[in-house]
Amino acid sequence: MLSYSVAQLRSYPLPATRYHMALFSPRGNTMKAIVIDQPGGPEVMRVGDAASPPLGPRDIRITVHAAGINRADLLQREGHYPPPAGASPILGLECAGVVAETGDEVKSFEPGERVMALLAGGGYAQETVVDAGSVFRVPDALADTEAGATPEAFLTAFSNIFMLAQAKSGESILIHGGGSGIGTAATTLCKLAGMRVLVTAGSAEKCARCIDHGADVAINYKDEDFVDKARGVDVVLDHLGARYLPRDLEAMARGGRVVIIGSMGGARTAEIDVTKLLASRQHIIGSTLRGRPLDEKAAIVSAFLDRFGDDLRAGRIRPVIDSVFPIARVADAHRRMASSEHFGKIVVKVR
Amino acid sequence: MLSYSVAQLRSYPLPATRYHMALFSPRGNTMKAIVIDQPGGPEVMRVGDAASPPLGPRDIRITVHAAGINRADLLQREGHYPPPAGASPILGLECAGVVAETGDEVKSFEPGERVMALLAGGGYAQETVVDAGSVFRVPDALADTEAGATPEAFLTAFSNIFMLAQAKSGESILIHGGGSGIGTAATTLCKLAGMRVLVTAGSAEKCARCIDHGADVAINYKDEDFVDKARGVDVVLDHLGARYLPRDLEAMARGGRVVIIGSMGGARTAEIDVTKLLASRQHIIGSTLRGRPLDEKAAIVSAFLDRFGDDLRAGRIRPVIDSVFPIARVADAHRRMASSEHFGKIVVKVR
Repeated sequence: MLSYSVAQLRSYPLPATRYHMALFSPRGNTMKAIVIDQPGGPEVMRVGDAASPPLGPRDIRITVHAAGINRADLLQREGHYPPPAGASPILGLECAGVVAETGDEVKSFEPGERVMALLAGGGYAQETVVDAGSVFRVPDALADTEAGATPEAFLTAFSNIFMLAQAKSGESILIHGGGSGIGTAATTLCKLAGMRVLVTAGSAEKCARCIDHGADVAINYKDEDFVDKARGVDVVLDHLGARYLPRDLEAMARGGRVVIIGSMGGARTAEIDVTKLLASRQHIIGSTLRGRPLDEKAAIVSAFLDRFGDDLRAGRIRPVIDSVFPIARVADAHRRMASSEHFGKIVVKVR
Repeated sequence: MLSYSVAQLRSYPLPATRYHMALFSPRGNTMKAIVIDQPGGPEVMRVGDAASPPLGPRDIRITVHAAGINRADLLQREGHYPPPAGASPILGLECAGVVAETGDEVKSFEPGERVMALLAGGGYAQETVVDAGSVFRVPDALADTEAGATPEAFLTAFSNIFMLAQAKSGESILIHGGGSGIGTAATTLCKLAGMRVLVTAGSAEKCARCIDHGADVAINYKDEDFVDKARGVDVVLDHLGARYLPRDLEAMARGGRVVIIGSMGGARTAEIDVTKLLASRQHIIGSTLRGRPLDEKAAIVSAFLDRFGDDLRAGRIRPVIDSVFPIARVADAHRRMASSEHFGKIVVKVR
C-alpha cells in the first residue's frame, strides 16, 4: 500500500509524485479539489476543478498541505451528512498549511505562517477559506501531516471532555473506540490532565496499542461487556449513541457525564431509566462540533490553547498517525477508514 | 383553616398558641421534634422527644423558628425517600432561626445571628445542627417564615438553572409547576437574570398567579400540550421526569438543557431519540440537591450569594408564601401540599 509512516515523513522529503502534481496549478479563480459528481462509494471522489472560495474580512485563506480524514467525511460522501448552511460542499473538516491571504479585519496572522484549522468543510482542496477564530499556529514540533490531523480530533476531544463534561484531574473516563483518531487524541489529553483512562477497542492488538499510547485499561468489546470493568467512571465519550447509552449510564458513577458524539451503533432510540438518572445525578450530553457557530468554535480554540497550548508547543500533543496518502489516492484513505483497521489518524497529503 | 398570610405575619405579632408552646421546653440533651413511629399518612407525625443533635467542629446549632415544607418530606414520611447516610431522620430540608452555638472551627457566624440553612434533614425540630457551609444570614428584609422557606427552593432553582444548565441572560426557560415553591423561586431568579420565563400550571387561576408573579407565558397543562407554546426554549426545569422528558426534548432549541429534579410524573423510563439529541446538541441533566456532599452544598451557597446576594438583601428575592401553620399542625401543612392547591411555599412556624 502506498502510504507513508510518520517516521518516513520525518526522515525523508516526500517524493513529488504525479498524484501531487495534479493538484498544483498556480492559483487563479479556480483551484483543484476533490469533487464528487454524485454520492456513492470511495470511487466517486476525483481530482477536479472547483471555484476558489471568496475571502471575507475575518477569513484566512490557507494553502492546504495536509488534511485529516474523518468518519464524517465518509458519511458526507455517501450523501448522509450534508454540510451545514454556508459551509463548503467539499469534504474535509481539518487541515494544515500556510497562510496565503488574510481578510481586512484579521490582525493575528500573516501570510506565510504555518497554520492548522478546524473546518466546516473544504479541506480536500488546494486552498480553503476559514474564519480566523478557527485557525491556530502549527508548532515547530509538528510535521504538516501531523498538524493536518490535529484540529478535529483534539478539539472534539477537548470541547466534549473538558468543556461540556467538565472533566477534572483525578477523575476517570471511558473512551469508546480508543484506537480511533478521536480516541487516541482523547487519551493523550486526559493523561496530560491527570485522569485515569479506560478505553474500548475491537481487537487484542488494538487494546495493546491503546495501552502503549497511555490508556490505563483497555477492554476488548468483542470479548467482554465493558460495564463491569468500567464501573464507576466519571465521564464517558461515546460515538455509538443509542446502542451503548444504557450501558454507559449503568457503568457511570454518581455525578457521571456521558457525551454522545456519534450514532455509529446504528440504533436511533434508547430506553432510559430517568428516575435512576435523577438519583445518580448523571448527565447525558448530545454534542456535535461541525455545526456550531463560529464564535463558539473560536471560544473552543481559545480555551484549548489556554489549557493545552504549552503541551502542543512542546510536542506532548501530537496525533497518532496511522497512514498518509497522496490526495489523488483519497479513495484508498477512505477505504482504510471504512475497514476500521486503522489506529489513529489517516491523513491526505495535498502538497 | 388556621393559617397565616404573609401580610398578617408582618403586621401582627404571631399569637403564642398552645401549639407553639408544646415544643418549647429549655434545651437539654433532648429536644422536641416531629417524630414518626412508622411511615404513613400525615397523621403519623406527632410532637415528641428526640435526641438533641451533637455539634461537630464545623457545625452550627440553630434554634429553629420556621421550617419550609417540601414535597420530598411527604415522600419521606411515607417511607419512600430515606434520608442520605449521616443525615437526621427527622423531616425538614430547610429552616430559619438563630445561631445557638458554633463548632470550634466556625469563624463566620456568632451566636444570636439570624440565619437560614439548607438541611439534609432535621428541620421539623426545636434545634438542628448543620455544616456551616450550608448556612447563610437572613437579611432584615425577610420575616422568619419567609427565610425558613428560602434555602431549599432558591438553592434548588439556582444550582440547577444557573450552575448545571448554565442559563444565561437573554435565554428562555420552561418551568414545569410554575406555582410550586421551586417554580415561584425559579421564576423570581430567572426574571432577575434577564430571562424569558414560560411556566406550566394546572388551572387558569394558577396560570394567572404565575403571570402576576412575573412569568411571561403560563400554559395550563390540563387544557393544552406545552410543546407548541414552549417551542424553542433553551432550558427546562422538570420535576416530572420520564413522563415529560420526550416532550421537553421536542420543545427545546438546539443546545437546550433539561434538568430533571423529580419523578413526579410517575413513569420511570422514557424512550429517547439519541440521534436527535446529538444533532440538536441537547443536554439531559439528572439532579438532586439533598444527597450532594457538604463541600458542593457550600459551593452552591457561595455561588448563590455571589450572584444574587444583593437581590436577597434588597428583598427582591423573597419566597411566595402560600400558608403558615404552627408546627403542631404540620399534618395539615402536609395535607395542603398533597392537595396541590397551594401557590408558593408552605411553612411551619416552630417558635
